[in-house]
This record gives sequence, structure tokens and C-alpha cells, in this order.
Amino acid sequence: MKKYDAALIIAASEKNADLFYATKFLAPDSFIYLQTSEKRIIFMNDLELERAKKQAKVEEVVSINKYAERSKEKSSKLIEVAAEILKEYKIKNLLVPSDFKAQDYVFLTNKGYKIEFKEDPFFEKRLVKTGEEVEAIKETQKHLEEAFDEAIRFLRVCTIKEGFIYYDKKQVTSEDIKRIINVRLMQNNCIAKHTIVACGNDATDPHSSGSGALKANEQIIIDIFPQSLDTMYFADMTRTIVKGRASEKLKNIYETVKKAQQLAISMVKPGADAKEVDLKVKEFFEKNSYKTGVINGVTQGFFHSTGHGIGLEIHEPPILSSKRASYTLKEGNVITIEPGLYYIDKGAVRLEDMVVVSKNGCINLTKCQKYLEIQ
Amino acid sequence: MKKYDAALIIAASEKNADLFYATKFLAPDSFIYLQTSEKRIIFMNDLELERAKKQAKVEEVVSINKYAERSKEKSSKLIEVAAEILKEYKIKNLLVPSDFKAQDYVFLTNKGYKIEFKEDPFFEKRLVKTGEEVEAIKETQKHLEEAFDEAIRFLRVCTIKEGFIYYDKKQVTSEDIKRIINVRLMQNNCIAKHTIVACGNDATDPHSSGSGALKANEQIIIDIFPQSLDTMYFADMTRTIVKGRASEKLKNIYETVKKAQQLAISMVKPGADAKEVDLKVKEFFEKNSYKTGVINGVTQGFFHSTGHGIGLEIHEPPILSSKRASYTLKEGNVITIEPGLYYIDKGAVRLEDMVVVSKNGCINLTKCQKYLEIQ
Repeated sequence: MKKYDAALIIAASEKNADLFYATKFLAPDSFIYLQTSEKRIIFMNDLELERAKKQAKVEEVVSINKYAERSKEKSSKLIEVAAEILKEYKIKNLLVPSDFKAQDYVFLTNKGYKIEFKEDPFFEKRLVKTGEEVEAIKETQKHLEEAFDEAIRFLRVCTIKEGFIYYDKKQVTSEDIKRIINVRLMQNNCIAKHTIVACGNDATDPHSSGSGALKANEQIIIDIFPQSLDTMYFADMTRTIVKGRASEKLKNIYETVKKAQQLAISMVKPGADAKEVDLKVKEFFEKNSYKTGVINGVTQGFFHSTGHGIGLEIHEPPILSSKRASYTLKEGNVITIEPGLYYIDKGAVRLEDMVVVSKNGCINLTKCQKYLEIQ
Repeated sequence: MKKYDAALIIAASEKNADLFYATKFLAPDSFIYLQTSEKRIIFMNDLELERAKKQAKVEEVVSINKYAERSKEKSSKLIEVAAEILKEYKIKNLLVPSDFKAQDYVFLTNKGYKIEFKEDPFFEKRLVKTGEEVEAIKETQKHLEEAFDEAIRFLRVCTIKEGFIYYDKKQVTSEDIKRIINVRLMQNNCIAKHTIVACGNDATDPHSSGSGALKANEQIIIDIFPQSLDTMYFADMTRTIVKGRASEKLKNIYETVKKAQQLAISMVKPGADAKEVDLKVKEFFEKNSYKTGVINGVTQGFFHSTGHGIGLEIHEPPILSSKRASYTLKEGNVITIEPGLYYIDKGAVRLEDMVVVSKNGCINLTKCQKYLEIQ
């Protein structure tokens, strides 16, 4: 039995994937979304009204002016406008997203509204991608791989001198490689915001974006996660490379991570538990003597989750993590598979592909080959 | 008298300007920020701990592990971890941002915590920029103007045929100009997400980003608002141009908007009311017979605010709007001044500069010249 009369979201769709998913309308400032059993309605100010009428994929687009005038202080506070709207629509029981603003929550409950929360994502259908959504993700991935390939082509023509990498006579930095990748992506209307090109010690910290001169013969972790401005869908890929020669230790880590990734991918199918995939990867590393824990005061080994859902957000459910609740994988889930090992003395490797859960297993959406050394 | 023991923010600093402002640390996933009268502490998971220790500008960086283990379900729910932290620090009364998650608010108040909200921005000091912040904004603005100039150079070498714009034999589109601008900005590590290049009818809708073939002899509104990934500070500028010849009607609108902008800028000084600046611009347009209202079912005239604060967010307080509360301008405020007029039959123009409030008036941070026609 349904306990609420309508769903309410007050947010800016440029920053709120659920609201964009529901409306296919991008706006930089907050607006009001109301979903009753009959229809989806958005309430817009003068600035966005006409554009919303043309672009928003909802049943009704309404001006907020009437409600704003009625609201007590004729203020531009959206929550007061929302209260006037709820009054007119005779709505008393609301379902809101978990990130509904606490101040707005207090305002409405003080007025007697009953509010229930919905766990993320607000629209569960977001977890199961349609064919169109998978195509959008593949398109972003295509541009991602073009950008990666351009960076690799550049690194191939570079030379090595005294342990560093040179282009002509200029020392090559992490920032140089990021620029090549990000500019190439922008040429295809894709934004890569925090591209990682992390070499040597930087690479042992999975979220360090890397900086400064790149070293030859050491791991370089390249993690690219652009969003297409055409579709708003993300893609995500990581490769680990060495310009020059890799140590035997690093080669071993690379092969182990690659096997862990294959193991994880082989487990991905409808009915499998996302949590279990992560547990099995952790078990695999332990069995192969790659321990996880604090060494010399720093956490080392494999200490992030094996993967995450991806779509209109770079990190969205399901999260493949042994620390999270179980999630039964379904056909249409798009997830990353990105095991990694990080040791300060031995080296660091992460390999990340994106897969879509299919009828009997999964399809790898990442075409880019895996190789460690480039000369 | 202070009514709270500590300030609490739970958010991802990549998406939360206040949290980045307080920590100078960028993280894609949510973490816990606690500010007592003595110090600012952030609580990080293993994945971010080491990087936070190196990069975050706070007094203390603490691992969440101890608290996560204590929390009832050993869950990864940050709010449960936060409750364990508050217990240990003997904090009962909290100040939180207005966008604190309602679900977290309910969780804490159910446990007996008293929570007070702070209006945006959480750190009021953000409204008054330091010299360093103004320099960061100027740096982003420099790259913005380089990108705009490149687009203009391109348009100058284009030719006109049958009312459309051509480069070589290819028709030039809004998307082409956006690409030139966005790619150039990315070369300088600046991200422009929703650049507007809106021609003809598109330009009469202030938030339409524009699409398709650009027309000669018609207004093209170009609005660029990049964020630097080096500093995270935004800049914002709008110019209106015509490739070819502008109509007399459009020229009149252009001159009127330019005068309105000069009027607004002349009013900006410490002690002036932000609301009053907007009112005076609206009055100026009315006096000059440029009316605002619904014409043939569409809002036309001047129907957005005269400007907004800018910094770590593209739109931040103060907002120069007659619909908002008064705000007394202070030395160090950085605001945009962007009057515009939008008529479907007569034409549309917006001109936007950024100014910093100085001791006796303001300094215009925008160097780019204003001209309507380019040949």
C-alpha cells in the first residue's frame, strides 16, 4: 500500500542526476519537481519556463509565479513556493530523496506534511540501463579510448634520459599527459574533470591525481572518467603503464591484478551478489600473498572496492564492496571492475574496465588493450 | 552567545564549495568535517587518508576506522560513523549547512542532538574575497578572454552566404564555436560546462545554450563561465555580437544594455544595496521604453537578475535581484553585472562583466572590449 501522495524533488538538475533522469532538462538553479500518480509536473521561474516547455520530458510545465505571489513573504524561497503548490494539489504525504535539504524538511514537517525518504537512487530504474543508455555510455567510452590512445602515442615518441621522460628537450609531466587527454575529450564534448596520471609514489595512493615529472621504468596509473555533455553519461577506465622497462615485482603485480579482474568479470551475471565479487577479489589477492593492511603506518594492498555502478553519475549504486549490503546483479547494470594493488616498495597497478550485465554473464564495454610496457 | 558546540558538514568537497573552502581538499566521495572552537578535523576512510594528510589545510586528519567499527552495524553509513564521533567529542549542539541531508538530520535529532541551520554560504567569509582569491578569478578570466578572442578570430575569417556563416565551404554552427571556446579553455585546465552560443531566436531565451547553424546579421549571445581546475575559481563573461550587419533596432538595444551596465557598475561600492542596483537597472529600461512582461504568451524584456556573486561557485551570494533580501555590498565582493534585453521581434542582447568591490567603488576585472558587429 502506498504511503505517499506524491514524490517531491527540489534541486538543480545540472547537479542532481535523478532530476535530470526524470526530466531530461538541464538547469543550473533549483526548481520544483512533483510526481503524482497521474503525472510529472515541473514548476519553473520566468527565466527557465520557455526552455523547459520545449525541452523537458514531463507531462506538464507550470510557471511558479502564481504560487510565489501567494507565498507568505512573496519571497523567492523555493520551499515556500513548494508549500503553496502542495496546498493547491491537496498533497499531504510526500516521498523525497535522501539528500532532500534538512531545512526544507523542517519547514514542511512544521506545516504538518508527512515525509518519507527514498534511498539512492531515487529512481531505481537508473540502475538498470536501457539500450539507449548503454549506447550513450559506449559513445563516451569511445572518446575516452581515443584520448587514452593519443596519450600513449605521445609517450611512445618520447625518449628516456636519466630516468625521466622527455619530449624533444622538455621533461614530460603528469600535467602534460592530463592536458592531452582532457583536451582531446573536450574536442568530442566530453569533460574529464579529475583525470589521474599518477607516477611512482603518487600511484600508490589510488586517488592522488599525480603531479610533476614522470619517471621512466616506473608505474604510471592513468584513470580517465569523462562525462559527455551531449548525453550526460559517464565512462570510466584505468590502465597502468611503464615507459621503458618494468621491474619483475611490478610485472607480477600487473599479472595478478589482471587475473583478479578476469576472475571478477567471470563472476558478473544476473543473480550474482555484487558484494561477493569484491570478497572473491580480496580473497584472490590474499591467496596470492598480496596482503592488505597497514605497513609502516600506511594502508597498502587492495583497500578500495572492486567496482561501482556508472551512468549519469560517475559513482552510483551498485557498489561492489564487501563493506556494503548485498545487491543482486541484474541484466542492464553497468559497472566498473577495477581491482588494484598498491605497495610503496613493490609497485602499484590498477586495471579498470566497464561491463554491462547481460542475459548469461556480462559484456565488456572496454575495447582498449592491456599492456604494461611501452618503449 | 553561541548556541552550538561544533559545526558539522558531511559532503563530497568536489561538489560542495563550502567544504572545499574550509579544507582546500578535493574528494569525490563524502567525508566528515567537524569544526570545534579549537580546531577543524576531517575524518577520512583508508582510500583518502594519506592524501588528506598531505593536502588538507585543517588542524587534524583522523581515520574513520575506529568509529566505523564502533557504529552499530559496522556499516559504511557515514551518518552512523558521525554519531560515534560526536559521542567521543561530547558534542550535543550542532550547526549544519542548509543543504545538510534531511535523512541525516532525522537520524541525529532522533538520537537527541540539537541542530541549527546556517544560511548559505556556510562560511560567510566566502562572500568577501581575499587578494589571493581575486587573483585566482582574474587568472580564470584571462583564459576565458583568450578563448573568446579565439572564437572571434575564427568568426572574422568566416564568410557570409545567403544569410549563413561559412568557414571554407562548411556551415558554421553554435556547436563549432562552443568547441573552439571549450577546447581552448581546457588547454589551460579550465572547464566550461554549459557555454552559451545562442543565435537568433535561441538568444531570446537567456538560458538556451544554442544549437545549429549560426545566422549572419543576427545577434549571437556568447556566455562563457569556466572553472579553473588549478584553483577551482570561476569566471563569467557575456558578449553579444553580430557577424555582418546589425539592424538599427538591435543597435539601439545594444547601446541601451551597455548604458544600463555602466549605470549598474557606477552604483557598485561599499555600502550600496545589491537589490537597489537591480531595481535601478529595471527602472532604466522602463524609462527607455524597453518594457518587461508577457508578450504573445512569452516573457520578454529584462527578466533575470542584474548579477550574482562568483567564486568557488558560478552562482553564489550576493544575488543582485529586486526579488531578494537587501545585501549591503562590501569591499572584496566579486559580482557579475549582466543586464540584458530579450525581444523576439526586436532582438536580444546581454553584456556581462565581473567587478570586485573596492574601497570607493569597484574595479572591472573584465578586459575584453565591447563591440557588436564583426565583419
